[in-house]
Amino acid sequence: MEKTNIAIVGLGTVGSGVARLLLDHGDRTARHAGRTMWLRKAVVRDIEKAKQRMTLPDGVLTDSLDDVINDEEITVVAQLIGGLEPARTIMLKLMESGKDIVTANKALLAEHGPELFDRARQLGRSIAFEASVAGGIPIIANISQCLSANQLQSLEGILNGTSNFIVSQMDEKGSDYADVVAEAQRLGYAEADPTMDVDGTDAAQKLAILAHLAFGATINWNDIPRIGIDGLDPADLRYARELGYRIKLLAVANLTEAGLELSVAPTLLKIGTPLAEVRNAFNAIRAVGDAVGPVFYHGLGAGQMPTASAVVADLIDTAVGRTKLTFQTLEYFCGENPPRAIQRDAASLKGRFYLRLLVANHPGTLGAIANVLSDHSISIASVIQHETDTSESTDRMVPLVIMTHEATEGAASEATNKLEGLSVVSGSVVRLRVKD
Amino acid sequence: MEKTNIAIVGLGTVGSGVARLLLDHGDRTARHAGRTMWLRKAVVRDIEKAKQRMTLPDGVLTDSLDDVINDEEITVVAQLIGGLEPARTIMLKLMESGKDIVTANKALLAEHGPELFDRARQLGRSIAFEASVAGGIPIIANISQCLSANQLQSLEGILNGTSNFIVSQMDEKGSDYADVVAEAQRLGYAEADPTMDVDGTDAAQKLAILAHLAFGATINWNDIPRIGIDGLDPADLRYARELGYRIKLLAVANLTEAGLELSVAPTLLKIGTPLAEVRNAFNAIRAVGDAVGPVFYHGLGAGQMPTASAVVADLIDTAVGRTKLTFQTLEYFCGENPPRAIQRDAASLKGRFYLRLLVANHPGTLGAIANVLSDHSISIASVIQHETDTSESTDRMVPLVIMTHEATEGAASEATNKLEGLSVVSGSVVRLRVKD
Ligand SMILES: NC(=O)c1ccc[n+]([C@@H]2O[C@H](COP(=O)([O-])OP(=O)(O)OC[C@H]3O[C@@H](n4cnc5c(N)ncnc54)[C@H](OP(=O)(O)O)[C@@H]3O)[C@@H](O)[C@H]2O)c1
Ligand SMILES: NC(=O)c1ccc[n+]([C@@H]2O[C@H](COP(=O)([O-])OP(=O)(O)OC[C@H]3O[C@@H](n4cnc5c(N)ncnc54)[C@H](OP(=O)(O)O)[C@@H]3O)[C@@H](O)[C@H]2O)c1
Repeated sequence: MEKTNIAIVGLGTVGSGVARLLLDHGDRTARHAGRTMWLRKAVVRDIEKAKQRMTLPDGVLTDSLDDVINDEEITVVAQLIGGLEPARTIMLKLMESGKDIVTANKALLAEHGPELFDRARQLGRSIAFEASVAGGIPIIANISQCLSANQLQSLEGILNGTSNFIVSQMDEKGSDYADVVAEAQRLGYAEADPTMDVDGTDAAQKLAILAHLAFGATINWNDIPRIGIDGLDPADLRYARELGYRIKLLAVANLTEAGLELSVAPTLLKIGTPLAEVRNAFNAIRAVGDAVGPVFYHGLGAGQMPTASAVVADLIDTAVGRTKLTFQTLEYFCGENPPRAIQRDAASLKGRFYLRLLVANHPGTLGAIANVLSDHSISIASVIQHETDTSESTDRMVPLVIMTHEATEGAASEATNKLEGLSVVSGSVVRLRVKD
Repeated sequence: MEKTNIAIVGLGTVGSGVARLLLDHGDRTARHAGRTMWLRKAVVRDIEKAKQRMTLPDGVLTDSLDDVINDEEITVVAQLIGGLEPARTIMLKLMESGKDIVTANKALLAEHGPELFDRARQLGRSIAFEASVAGGIPIIANISQCLSANQLQSLEGILNGTSNFIVSQMDEKGSDYADVVAEAQRLGYAEADPTMDVDGTDAAQKLAILAHLAFGATINWNDIPRIGIDGLDPADLRYARELGYRIKLLAVANLTEAGLELSVAPTLLKIGTPLAEVRNAFNAIRAVGDAVGPVFYHGLGAGQMPTASAVVADLIDTAVGRTKLTFQTLEYFCGENPPRAIQRDAASLKGRFYLRLLVANHPGTLGAIANVLSDHSISIASVIQHETDTSESTDRMVPLVIMTHEATEGAASEATNKLEGLSVVSGSVVRLRVKD
């Protein structure tokens, strides 16, 4: 049986999971690849630390990248260091020494993807990155190969497990954001510094990668309008539920006449629809193609073994030679064709909105608010205003929740500003998107 | 740009959908394949009939298979005739004349797969068959490539859209089986003769294909124990709902210590779980891998364009060269390794059961029934027996529904026989499996 020699660079959570799959399940990896997938080197920074983490066969562990670079028999490398540097430089060095790359590093691809992909092509090398989006869900292969007969029309995804865990827990337990974050950190679902997860950065980076594959658009993730879950109030989860919705951090890419609309934001999703029911650390993607219609994927979006599953599938595809063919195809897909226009004029985007206001509890308030909305051609679909305790003074402020019919983002934004200026409205207005 | 010349044999529902994608969307197919995907011939039985169905460019339509066989420039053929013959003979002839094959014909693969695959290997040809299972859901590629790092542990699927449509409609409208079938035929969701769909044959054939890929087992679909939905009583859908379940025609492959358990049967699924919520003509598959955990797929399981989406993805993969590499890998996967033992001793399978009996409405009945169950080590989880109209005679027969805790199929089957022999039980006992 043929043998493919593999190296892993970075033996952290994902790297040690990949090593485990290769070492403990060599038989089945060989069966599924038609060749032996041989772990020849694992490069770490600190050998003693790595030894505490896991036991590797003699001669595999090294702290010298040169042991991989100078070994011509190693043809495929799983590059599993996080962050931008030294990950980028290491990846370039590895490709220059003739290695094909498998990586899980979405931040690196979102930031330096064009440079790395171009360099890979010049060098005749390939980069596989299934693990970079949605962990164990093979969404990269599905978009770039399995649905290739389609013009994809939209992608909607829950792409950040940490945010989804936090929102699910807030929703189910009625807890505050800060309490749930602390709990998520204790359980290992959130990093010590979860900023990139909860502010929508991670989801935007993943959406940029998916939209690039699906629509041939070159997207700077930083241009994607994004709102995280870090400002979410449990009250909004409660009102949403009362209206028949759950709130999820939704990443959306939508192909319209005007171009590609991209966004990441907490969004109301109708209870009972598949995306609304994605709980805790799960991820999910709904893709709509013009031929296939809607296809829905659901699975674990992170974690050691789900992510390692995606990395090892890529190692097999690369060893077998499939990745190279896909990579050549992708070159045509996104290299030669002009990227689709990206819709930057958010004002014209249409949708329904959820508004929560703190209003004066006296006659005429609802009328004043309804007038502002109707001045902006926004019509009201439903209202929640609970009866207040009659023993309390009627000039107390009370919450008012409004679901609108379809309106443009521009109109909703202007109306919100106007509402915030009304004397019967106190403080700022919470405005969230609604998907049916 | 390179060009791959393609032929379609059989221009029916799927064939004409494939022709439409190739003709109307040549640009994007070329972009996604990195080459022109050129429809050169479409072989039909009756040229006049085909002309009524669709307009093809001059010179494409032919009623002679030899026009494809003798044309060396045609390298890939979508074989889209249904049934066993002449589909089998045509496929062999095409491969012998050097063509790679793409097909949607699950009946042919389930019946003659081993012969066709062996012949393809001898000839150095490939067969791609994404469209043969679950229509637009790319489950073949997902199992044989995307999840290749895993030992799959189970597959559960709703694989027959016609059955699922019928059961969904019976459930939602409370209608009888026969009425819904007539309606499904009128709407085009069921064939004039829907026997193979509703008796579980089609689902068993698809399960045989999936289990072959997932577990390396060579399975004669006819050996898979199967029960269709043709005997389903709306009363059971109602009682199931009362207990918090829906009934679906579920195909299951489960890897246990004792071997591979396979079955197709109407099964109670807990309301709110993803498989229970698959409605109408949709299909879905839940796969569990030892590394990735559970992955869920949902999409349109049949219909012209979803199926054509799968066929064209296969045509692209074949033209690009990926199919050949996968096909070689699959050879190792299932050719050289002994198939996993198939668990044929259904008696030892464990599960929970739903029982519905018609019983005498007098004291002692429930005791007698509970005794039989406890004699077979089956304990009762819940019971439904509605109060009867007191004006009616108490010796009338009334329905009794029992949900058991976990028991073996053998014990449940013996207990059922015993129950049917009790004087307080009238007629036969309905017994269905329950999945939580
Ligand atoms: N964890 C997940 O669930 C998941 C899911 C999808 C994608 N990813 C991505 O996968 C990548 C790895 O994630 P992870 O969770 O495995 O992170 P991690 O546990 O922090 O592992 C990263 C490893 O890289 C090592 N490293 C850093 N610089 C190095 C160098 N110069 N040479 C050799 N090793 C070096 C680190 O060593 P030290 O221990 O010495 O710092 C650490 O062991 C990241 O890009 C992440 O975004 C992770
Ligand atoms: N329809 C779906 O949604 C779906 C989904 C998944 C898989 N499939 C599978 O795809 C295959 C095709 O299904 P379909 O729905 O397209 O069936 P269909 O509409 O009946 O089409 C089959 C076509 O093959 C033609 N044909 C039969 N014998 C031929 C011959 N000797 N030479 C040339 N053409 C011949 C038939 O011609 P006539 O019109 O003259 O009879 C008919 O046009 C089947 O194996 C089916 O199981 C279908």
